[in-house]
Amino acid sequence: MKILAIGDIIGKPGRRAVKELLPALKLGLGIDFVIANGENAAGGKGLTPETAEELFSCGVDVITSGNHIWAQQEIYPMLEGSAPVLRPLNYPPGVPGKGFVTVKGVMVVSLMGRTFINTIDCPFRAMDALLSSLDRKPGHIIVDFHAEATSEKQAMGWHLDGKVSAVVGTHTHVGTVDARVLPGGTACVSDIGMVGPWHSIIGDDKDEVLSRFLTGLHQRLSVAKGARITFNSVLITTDSNGRAIAIERVDREAAI
Amino acid sequence: MKILAIGDIIGKPGRRAVKELLPALKLGLGIDFVIANGENAAGGKGLTPETAEELFSCGVDVITSGNHIWAQQEIYPMLEGSAPVLRPLNYPPGVPGKGFVTVKGVMVVSLMGRTFINTIDCPFRAMDALLSSLDRKPGHIIVDFHAEATSEKQAMGWHLDGKVSAVVGTHTHVGTVDARVLPGGTACVSDIGMVGPWHSIIGDDKDEVLSRFLTGLHQRLSVAKGARITFNSVLITTDSNGRAIAIERVDREAAI
Amino acid sequence: MKILAIGDIIGKPGRRAVKELLPALKLGLGIDFVIANGENAAGGKGLTPETAEELFSCGVDVITSGNHIWAQQEIYPMLEGSAPVLRPLNYPPGVPGKGFVTVKGVMVVSLMGRTFINTIDCPFRAMDALLSSLDRKPGHIIVDFHAEATSEKQAMGWHLDGKVSAVVGTHTHVGTVDARVLPGGTACVSDIGMVGPWHSIIGDDKDEVLSRFLTGLHQRLSVAKGARITFNSVLITTDSNGRAIAIERVDREAAI
Amino acid sequence: MKILAIGDIIGKPGRRAVKELLPALKLGLGIDFVIANGENAAGGKGLTPETAEELFSCGVDVITSGNHIWAQQEIYPMLEGSAPVLRPLNYPPGVPGKGFVTVKGVMVVSLMGRTFINTIDCPFRAMDALLSSLDRKPGHIIVDFHAEATSEKQAMGWHLDGKVSAVVGTHTHVGTVDARVLPGGTACVSDIGMVGPWHSIIGDDKDEVLSRFLTGLHQRLSVAKGARITFNSVLITTDSNGRAIAIERVDREAAI
Ligand SMILES: [Fe+2]
Ligand SMILES: [Fe+2]
Ligand SMILES: [Fe+2]
Ligand SMILES: [Fe+2]
Ligand SMILES: [Fe+2]
Ligand SMILES: [Fe+2]
Ligand SMILES: [Fe+2]
Ligand SMILES: [Fe+2]
Repeated sequence: MKILAIGDIIGKPGRRAVKELLPALKLGLGIDFVIANGENAAGGKGLTPETAEELFSCGVDVITSGNHIWAQQEIYPMLEGSAPVLRPLNYPPGVPGKGFVTVKGVMVVSLMGRTFINTIDCPFRAMDALLSSLDRKPGHIIVDFHAEATSEKQAMGWHLDGKVSAVVGTHTHVGTVDARVLPGGTACVSDIGMVGPWHSIIGDDKDEVLSRFLTGLHQRLSVAKGARITFNSVLITTDSNGRAIAIERVDREAAI
Repeated sequence: MKILAIGDIIGKPGRRAVKELLPALKLGLGIDFVIANGENAAGGKGLTPETAEELFSCGVDVITSGNHIWAQQEIYPMLEGSAPVLRPLNYPPGVPGKGFVTVKGVMVVSLMGRTFINTIDCPFRAMDALLSSLDRKPGHIIVDFHAEATSEKQAMGWHLDGKVSAVVGTHTHVGTVDARVLPGGTACVSDIGMVGPWHSIIGDDKDEVLSRFLTGLHQRLSVAKGARITFNSVLITTDSNGRAIAIERVDREAAI
Repeated sequence: MKILAIGDIIGKPGRRAVKELLPALKLGLGIDFVIANGENAAGGKGLTPETAEELFSCGVDVITSGNHIWAQQEIYPMLEGSAPVLRPLNYPPGVPGKGFVTVKGVMVVSLMGRTFINTIDCPFRAMDALLSSLDRKPGHIIVDFHAEATSEKQAMGWHLDGKVSAVVGTHTHVGTVDARVLPGGTACVSDIGMVGPWHSIIGDDKDEVLSRFLTGLHQRLSVAKGARITFNSVLITTDSNGRAIAIERVDREAAI
Repeated sequence: MKILAIGDIIGKPGRRAVKELLPALKLGLGIDFVIANGENAAGGKGLTPETAEELFSCGVDVITSGNHIWAQQEIYPMLEGSAPVLRPLNYPPGVPGKGFVTVKGVMVVSLMGRTFINTIDCPFRAMDALLSSLDRKPGHIIVDFHAEATSEKQAMGWHLDGKVSAVVGTHTHVGTVDARVLPGGTACVSDIGMVGPWHSIIGDDKDEVLSRFLTGLHQRLSVAKGARITFNSVLITTDSNGRAIAIERVDREAAI
């Protein structure tokens, strides 16, 4: 099976790039299944039903997310309903949304790290609990691990090695070169990256971000402008048991 | 000019890999100048005069560093003397060591970020101050920006665009795919990565790191074992004025 | 001289309590000078010209602040003009506002810590620079050190011992019992506390704050309701040279 | 019942002060039960069997702790055995030690906050789980909540109001003035404070701590010297059902 995992999609430029690039990629690479991180798809912060539908109509099968997924109130019904839109699994009980879903026989899990980010439940034990709760473990399980620290991300890969098909990182908006298949058959990468404006600081307007660093003040950020787009994804190839055979980066640049 | 910038070298496996791989790389790629981050070169934490000399003898011209550079007391005289061993520039006055050095006409600066790491002086203004203090600005200036957050790293690239030849990130021990030349002629990458054991979590023993995440306890970490090595670096090509023409990743795997 | 230093005033309940309690306290305790922290005076976040004037009309001489002072745009002209409304001194150049002011011969400084809060300029060296920039050092200098960590706050007291009349902490919204005069004649306390609703979590609605801790989600907070008010302040007594003779807590509870 | 809760005891000066002051306090105030935080009792970091026995021999009934309790390996058997020495309850399964104990009919719980400290299990839900696991809830339950942020500490008080006798904070080493009985009958204080050297920064050598703040380097800290001691504690009075009637601070200074 060939699974494409797309990084954080940043606002309208990100959605447009997915629309332009994804259909051809699916065809060209023979992709069977697509996940994409949607936590920044609506104006850079959160996701709405409209932006989610836009992504589904481009060929995304499951939308994963992270800390920004609750930013837009309109998404709550979709999070709580059966739509394949996920919030991180390891938030406490009572938090709206679901952390995993099975589509076309592939279980997809949204999971979030804690180091430098938030004090939520342990993502390692949340995965252990999920896996041991399954009556019949699906062959294919893909985990989007939304986290900041490279140590926590690589740790999750080793922790789940042999238990899931892939652990792919998101959140830093910058792709990493450590894509590899671990000895147990789990494909890993610390960060997929983003789909967003090239003339930017991780997708946001560079002058606004720089001003934050230069002043220490926390002004609002907006999605950067400009036609040039960075498209970051990884392609995971699995055997029929869901064991990863290969993982390779699929990075594109485009003017949209 | 062709400049190779090597990521954090992790302990003995990292030093051995540099010894094995660097000479051939220099020859094969026609490299004129080499910088390498040495903050983890001695047993994973800090640098000693012996490990520094080992790196110089392999062809490293300047050793940059980061938060761990003061871990081994023996390095202090080298930091404070004329040896091309740097500590981050933007520590407060009175901290041992120097933050920049010029070797073979290339000025190299060690700089450190603050987000998620430490409360030191502003790295953006430290660079501004350094640049405006120079009577005659060297054509080539290479900055190793040792930082955690991708936003701070890309911000530094844009801040220095057109003012230095390159801003190359270190500290996360994982290379990133965003190597690019900005419009003003500055080559950037968020993180070069590391030279260290493949069977590891960012160079450290994976069971020890995992145990930290699973228990919340802060036990000591040791450099991972195993012959397979990840070697991460970037190659920067400049014109005679020090303006970057290209930056490309040079990543290798080897058994040592 | 008798100087009263009031902690973070929280929204309308805080302002009302100052109005009710301060005039009688001034009379009863023979207070000559009053400073108060206004960073939460307007609806719990920031300060407006109206709320500032309200505090002045109650007998406050200088309004100090902290990280929230820029929350309301209307305050900018007051911060930048001659009104005795301060922002922390140790923000980078270019940030709106001033960090110190002299009123009735007393210099008041607003200063901010970094540990657990923000990556701004070093508050210790900012004070050193301010003190050495003064042609004629005023006898009375009062520093409101807005910081989280008790270690950083006590450190500032010792750092400035003998150089200023008092270093009084704010930001945690909870008063501390360590009010003391250090050997050099500087009065210190780690935190003055707040003026705000008793039925609250540090001034905010307790259910909203609890929900944050229970869910990990960052919903907005509002000022707590209820007539019962905590009023925290400290009274500093100095000799004619500005040397502190005594510091004592002045804590009141009231129904307003 | 009259229960004395003592803050973090700092090294030898702290232990000596407990020895000198506690017996008289017990007599003078008619104290029935004593808890004390021992995480810094052995040389400022951790606890040993010897220092624990020293505290028991002075009249301490239960030793609570915090993040430093595992610093000295010798304490592990005591943590895991039946001795009334606690580690925080909300560490993950598998961590050595126990989080609660019942002595003389009083259940004492050691609990730890997460904000600004560590990514462990949710302390709020850990308490909920403990309380609902009890077949017969003891009348008296005292919680030492070892945490940094005042918001998290006051939040825990409200969360447990009516469910436990008291929630007393530790960790900042500075006592707070917000001791109060909440409407449901739970006594609270954000921080008890410490028992340690007055000429110090929260118990540590002031020059060493100041040097950390001035340089950004993480050198080791040692317990401060000097005969003058701060002794911080709170006295909780309960009725026969374990409901708190009063809480008052008991702070002393002494030369030892
Ligand atoms: Fe994102
Ligand atoms: Fe995120
Ligand atoms: Fe490193
Ligand atoms: Fe580092
Ligand atoms: Fe405040
Ligand atoms: Fe504040
Ligand atoms: Fe402590
Ligand atoms: Fe502690």
